[in-house]
Amino acid sequence: MNRFSLNQATTKYWPIPELVAGCVDAGVTQVGLWREETRDYGVEKTAALVREAGLAVTSLCRGGFFHTPDWYDENRRAIDEAATLGAPVLVLVSGGLPPGSRDLDAARARVTESIGALVPYALAAGVRLAIEPLHPMFCSDRCVVASLGQALDLAAPHPVEAVGVVVDTYHVWWDDQVWAQIERAGRERRIACFQVADWVTPLPEGVLLGRGLPGEGCVELRRFREAVDATGFTGPIEVEVFHADVWARPGREVLDATLAGYRTHVL
Amino acid sequence: MNRFSLNQATTKYWPIPELVAGCVDAGVTQVGLWREETRDYGVEKTAALVREAGLAVTSLCRGGFFHTPDWYDENRRAIDEAATLGAPVLVLVSGGLPPGSRDLDAARARVTESIGALVPYALAAGVRLAIEPLHPMFCSDRCVVASLGQALDLAAPHPVEAVGVVVDTYHVWWDDQVWAQIERAGRERRIACFQVADWVTPLPEGVLLGRGLPGEGCVELRRFREAVDATGFTGPIEVEVFHADVWARPGREVLDATLAGYRTHVL
Repeated sequence: MNRFSLNQATTKYWPIPELVAGCVDAGVTQVGLWREETRDYGVEKTAALVREAGLAVTSLCRGGFFHTPDWYDENRRAIDEAATLGAPVLVLVSGGLPPGSRDLDAARARVTESIGALVPYALAAGVRLAIEPLHPMFCSDRCVVASLGQALDLAAPHPVEAVGVVVDTYHVWWDDQVWAQIERAGRERRIACFQVADWVTPLPEGVLLGRGLPGEGCVELRRFREAVDATGFTGPIEVEVFHADVWARPGREVLDATLAGYRTHVL
Repeated sequence: MNRFSLNQATTKYWPIPELVAGCVDAGVTQVGLWREETRDYGVEKTAALVREAGLAVTSLCRGGFFHTPDWYDENRRAIDEAATLGAPVLVLVSGGLPPGSRDLDAARARVTESIGALVPYALAAGVRLAIEPLHPMFCSDRCVVASLGQALDLAAPHPVEAVGVVVDTYHVWWDDQVWAQIERAGRERRIACFQVADWVTPLPEGVLLGRGLPGEGCVELRRFREAVDATGFTGPIEVEVFHADVWARPGREVLDATLAGYRTHVL
């Protein structure tokens, strides 16, 4: 259980003080945080709260969205916030196509350039950028990085301490190349963050809020955990689930269900 | 315009006699048909109608669904129907995971075996099996073949006249490997069917009925057509769009809109 980390997105509406207290009470020692929620509560205040509670912050979600006009300043702010929170990793979701555009190559070239531009700042702050491939169903509106292989190609030119990738079971489970790419990610020392969620159907309208808690869906979660472990990765295992029904439940109840699913289906 | 083919799914509720007359009236010379509709109207009757109207049938959708108990008999019936209709190609959608299963490898192995079992029957009937990779968002419930590369790997052991692949822009547009895989598909003489639909968001609940007519979305359709052409492919270009709003419109109106989109965004 010492590798488990609760990603805050799983309990989106659990106020931060209650989330921290709930984790401590449940014996959870690590959390993944989100910018929106930590900024609402106060970044410094959140940092102090988790530190005093003895919790480690495993990642901050998210930077990226390189198709927006203020991406450069916004991502530097995100790196600063990660440093303040003691998060070793800032997750990057690249963003989709600009409105009205069909130029996927240009959007991808922009991601390449933008990451390059952020590397010096990330290195100076001691925060590792983690490129997250999202499921291809998000390619147009959320993330033009659509496979683990593509994320690894993007990371390759940069120092390993500056740029890694996220392996999130929800986004990559369908890929017949994923086992080879996880092995490659380990060999190239690029696994910066490992996240777990399950795939359930039917997908809801807009497809964003359709993830399952571990065990609710069809992903071989244990096989993924073992494959990631086999590369030598010993870092945290975050459970990150977006689902309207999950969010409607009390935070502690969701944490307990998450822990139960994690024990049965991930460990 | 002589390569354009109206896939019946685009005008799902247009009765077959009206569809045939509408195509003739619009100067359309080719149609892609669907099993459900042709069986409802009568396969022999449909065959006679399209033949008398001088229409060519470019494909029949669909066989596959290898996770169902009666897949073998059902797919032989589909091959027979394709032969009766004069369709040179039977599109195969592999099917997803069996209910309750998480064993994606086993489901994929089953697809390999099933296609192998059907090859002699398809060869004897003179019908080419076309493996269609669907978008990865359909991987669990509809099609465990999720990329063009994977479809080509599945086709590789079989004679080219027996097994090819479908290139459908809707399903493969997001893939950073797609241009290389289209080139490979041509080199290996595997392009059996080329279908066009556009990608639009937000996706509807269940994600099946969310496609756009050519030009309504963000796919570089002309680039795909040119890439497929560059392999030496000179076959039909089917427009196949599933969308509840499109289906609610009169067939002829949809055909005209499809032709307009095709001229502007595909040719």
